[in-house]
Amino acid sequence: MSYFDVASSAPLHPVARQALIAALDEGWADPARLHREGRRARLLLDAARETAADAVGCRPDELIFTPSGTRAVHLGVAGVRAARRRVGSRVVVSAVEHSSVLHAAGDDAAEVPVDRFGRVDPAVFAGALTADTALAALQSANHEVGTVQPVAEAAEACRAAGVPLLVDAAQSLGWGPVDGDWSLLTASAHKWGGPAGVGLLAVRKGTRFAPQDPADERESGRSPGFENIPAVLAAAASLRAVRAEAAEGGLRLSALVDRIRARVPALVPDVEVVGDPVRRLPHVVTFSCLYVDGEALLHELDRAGFSVSSGSSCTSGTLTPSHVLRAMGVLSEGNVRVSLGAGATEEEVERFLGVLPGVVSSVRERLGAPGAASAAAPGAGPVVVDALGKRCPIPVIELAKVIGGVPVGGTVTVLSDDAAARLDIPAWCGMRGQEYLGEERRERGSAYGVRRLV
Amino acid sequence: MSYFDVASSAPLHPVARQALIAALDEGWADPARLHREGRRARLLLDAARETAADAVGCRPDELIFTPSGTRAVHLGVAGVRAARRRVGSRVVVSAVEHSSVLHAAGDDAAEVPVDRFGRVDPAVFAGALTADTALAALQSANHEVGTVQPVAEAAEACRAAGVPLLVDAAQSLGWGPVDGDWSLLTASAHKWGGPAGVGLLAVRKGTRFAPQDPADERESGRSPGFENIPAVLAAAASLRAVRAEAAEGGLRLSALVDRIRARVPALVPDVEVVGDPVRRLPHVVTFSCLYVDGEALLHELDRAGFSVSSGSSCTSGTLTPSHVLRAMGVLSEGNVRVSLGAGATEEEVERFLGVLPGVVSSVRERLGAPGAASAAAPGAGPVVVDALGKRCPIPVIELAKVIGGVPVGGTVTVLSDDAAARLDIPAWCGMRGQEYLGEERRERGSAYGVRRLV
Repeated sequence: MSYFDVASSAPLHPVARQALIAALDEGWADPARLHREGRRARLLLDAARETAADAVGCRPDELIFTPSGTRAVHLGVAGVRAARRRVGSRVVVSAVEHSSVLHAAGDDAAEVPVDRFGRVDPAVFAGALTADTALAALQSANHEVGTVQPVAEAAEACRAAGVPLLVDAAQSLGWGPVDGDWSLLTASAHKWGGPAGVGLLAVRKGTRFAPQDPADERESGRSPGFENIPAVLAAAASLRAVRAEAAEGGLRLSALVDRIRARVPALVPDVEVVGDPVRRLPHVVTFSCLYVDGEALLHELDRAGFSVSSGSSCTSGTLTPSHVLRAMGVLSEGNVRVSLGAGATEEEVERFLGVLPGVVSSVRERLGAPGAASAAAPGAGPVVVDALGKRCPIPVIELAKVIGGVPVGGTVTVLSDDAAARLDIPAWCGMRGQEYLGEERRERGSAYGVRRLV
Repeated sequence: MSYFDVASSAPLHPVARQALIAALDEGWADPARLHREGRRARLLLDAARETAADAVGCRPDELIFTPSGTRAVHLGVAGVRAARRRVGSRVVVSAVEHSSVLHAAGDDAAEVPVDRFGRVDPAVFAGALTADTALAALQSANHEVGTVQPVAEAAEACRAAGVPLLVDAAQSLGWGPVDGDWSLLTASAHKWGGPAGVGLLAVRKGTRFAPQDPADERESGRSPGFENIPAVLAAAASLRAVRAEAAEGGLRLSALVDRIRARVPALVPDVEVVGDPVRRLPHVVTFSCLYVDGEALLHELDRAGFSVSSGSSCTSGTLTPSHVLRAMGVLSEGNVRVSLGAGATEEEVERFLGVLPGVVSSVRERLGAPGAASAAAPGAGPVVVDALGKRCPIPVIELAKVIGGVPVGGTVTVLSDDAAARLDIPAWCGMRGQEYLGEERRERGSAYGVRRLV
C-alpha cells in the first residue's frame, strides 16, 4: 500500500507518537489547578507553546492551541472581524482558500481571483484592500494543487493598508515558517504528522482581537475548552522533528513530484497537470484526466494499492467540482491529487506511474470514452447533445463523440445540468483546440456552445 | 501521592489508554476520504459513535463528538437558541451550572436558585419556564459539591412547557445514563477517564437545532473541525469500561465519602460539610473550614501528598468565591473539594483524615485565627473592624477576634472589599449563632453588620 494523501491527513510521526504516549501519564490533569499534577500539566503546556511558537516564528504569548485547524481559522476570523467592526465588514480572500476560511469569511466575502496555476497576483490582492476591509486572508500554499502564494507581498500590502492578514499555513508549516509580516497564522497538526485534535492560532501583538465565543479562561480566553495537553505536546514535538527533516526531505520529494509532473502526460493521453510547476509545495502534484470519472479512478487506484484524493465533483458530497479547480479554470474530471509523505520512495512512485495508464484507460473504456479521433453521425446544421441528468464526465464524453461528425466551423450545443460541465466543457475546448462559445442558462441546466476549429 | 481531584480531570483509564494507542495506527486518516485508510477511519468513528450512544441512551445519529465538554455545551446552547429565536430569547438555568453553561447562557439568563444543599426545586424550575423561553439547562449533578439534581422532573416540566432541556452530564455520565426525557445532553470524556479532546453532544430527534458556527461537513454539520478518531475511540471504550465498574465502585466510594462527611466535622473544629448528604455523586465531598485560606490549605495538603481543589476566592483567578457556594449561601473560606478516583483506597482516606486536622490548625495558627472563644478589647458602643484591602479569610478572622469583646446585643461592623466576605460573614454568623444584620455598600467595599447573640 502506498498512501499518497498526506495533504488530507498524515500518519502519526514517530516523534509525535512517542511524545503523546509519554504525555498520557504526565499531562492529563487540569493545568489550572494548584496541585502538583496540575502544575506538571501547566509546565508541559508551556513547554509545548514555546516549541510551537519557535517553529511558527512568534512569541509564546502570541500563540494559542485550538482543537483543530478549522477551529483556529474560525476563531481567528471571528476575533478580528468583531474587533474591527467599526472599520467595516469586508473580508478579502483568495478564491482558492480552504473551505474553512471561505465559510468563516461568509458568502459576501470579496474573492481575489487566481491564474491558471492557482496563484494570486499580489497587485490584485493589494487592490482589493479597501478602507472598509476588516480582514484579508491568504493561504501560504494551496491544499489541492500545491501552488505557493505570494504571502510576503500580500502581507506588505496589508500592512500598508492597515488591514490584518490571516495566513492559513495548514499545508506549509511543516516545511518552514511563513515569511512576511502577517498578523494571524493558523495551522493544523495532523497535516505535518502531529495528532488530530490540535490547531494553532497565532495572533501578533498589536492585532485587534475580540474573542466571540462564550467566555472561558483557557488559552488566554481565545479558545474555550479543556486543553488537550498530550496532543499539544505531540504536535509541538513533531513540528520540530519534521522541520529538522524538511530541507533534505523536501528536495527528495520535490524530485519525485517533478518526475510525476513530467511522466504522467507522457504516459496517459489527455491529461492536464495543474498547479504551479515551480512555486509549489515539495510534495503535492495534481492532474486531471479527460473522460474519466474521478470516483472510479480513486477506487481503481485504491484497488491497485494507492491512496489519493480528488477534487472531481463525483467525489464530493455536493456533486460540485472543487472550488479551487473552478477558480483556476482547469479541467475537473478525473482529478487526482498525489501528496507524498516523508517516507514515499522512488519505487512507489514508479509503481504508481506503471499502474496509472492502465487504470485510466480501463475507466475510460468502461465509460465509452472516445478514442483519439472518433467519427459520429455527420449532418448539416447545429448538433445538440442532450446530456441532461448525466454526471461528469459523461457530458464531455458525449461532446467529444459528436464533434468529429461536425464540419469545421460547425457548432455543438451540449445540454447539461451537471455542475462540472461548466468547468470541464471550456477546459476540454482548451485542451482540444476548439472554440468555447459560452453558456446559456435554461429552465433545466444550461446549454454550452462549442465551435469546431480543428 | 493521593490524587483526590478526578472531578477536575481523571487520569487516563487503562482501557482508554489501550484504545487510544491502538487507534493511533488505525484512525489517523480523514474519514471523509474514499481510500482504504479513510474508510477504516470512518468505520472506527462509526463504532465509537455506536458505543457512546449506547452509553448515553440515544441513537447514534443523535450523537456528535466535540473537542471538549465546554464546546459541546457552547454548540448545544447556540444551536437551540438560534433555532428557537422566534419563540424568545430567554434561557433558564440553575444558579449552580458549570461556568461553560452560564457563559453560554449569557448574563441575562434567568437563574433558578438552589437550597443550601445546592439542589434545585423542580417546582421552582418549572415555574421559570415562560412562553418565551428558548432553552432550559440543568446539570445532572453539581461539579463542586456533588449534589444530584432532579433532572427527570425538570425534563417532564420542560416537555409540558414545550421547552428543550439541556442536561450537562459532565460529572455523572461515567456513573450511569441520565434519566428523564431530556432534549440535549453534554459530557466530557476526561472526567470519566477518557482522554482530553473529546466532548459529547446528544440532540434528540425532534429538537429544533440550527448550528451557528461556519459551515463544515464534519459531525453532521454540528461540530466543525477534523475528527479526533483515536481520542473518540478511547473515550467511547473507556465510558463502556467505567460503566461496567460503576455499580460496585460507586458503593465503595460512597462509603468512603460518608466516612469523610462524618469524620471531618468531628476531627476539625469549625468546619461546614456542604452539598446534599444523600442525593449526591458517589465520589465527591466538599467542606469549608472557617478562618482558613483556601490556597494555603491546598498547598499544605499538596505538600502532605493530597491533590484536591477548592472553590475559595483565593484559589480563583478573579478572587471571587465559587458561584456554586455563593448560590448555596454556604461558607467559602477554606473550601476543599475531595473527588475520589476508582482506585482510591480506605488507607488513603484514613491518611487524609489523619493529616487534615494538623494542616488546618497550622494554617489557622499562621493567620492568627481565634481560638474557641477569644477575648478582645471590650468597649461601649458599636465596634468597627476595618478589613479593607484584606483578603479572605482575614475579615472573618478579625470579626471573630472582636466579637468576644462586644456585649451580647451589641454590634460589630466589618468593612471589607473582599468578594468572599459577602458570603462568609453571613455563613460565619450562621455557624456561630450570631445575627447577620446585612450589607451596606460603601464607596469602597461594604459594611457588614453583625449582632452578638451568644
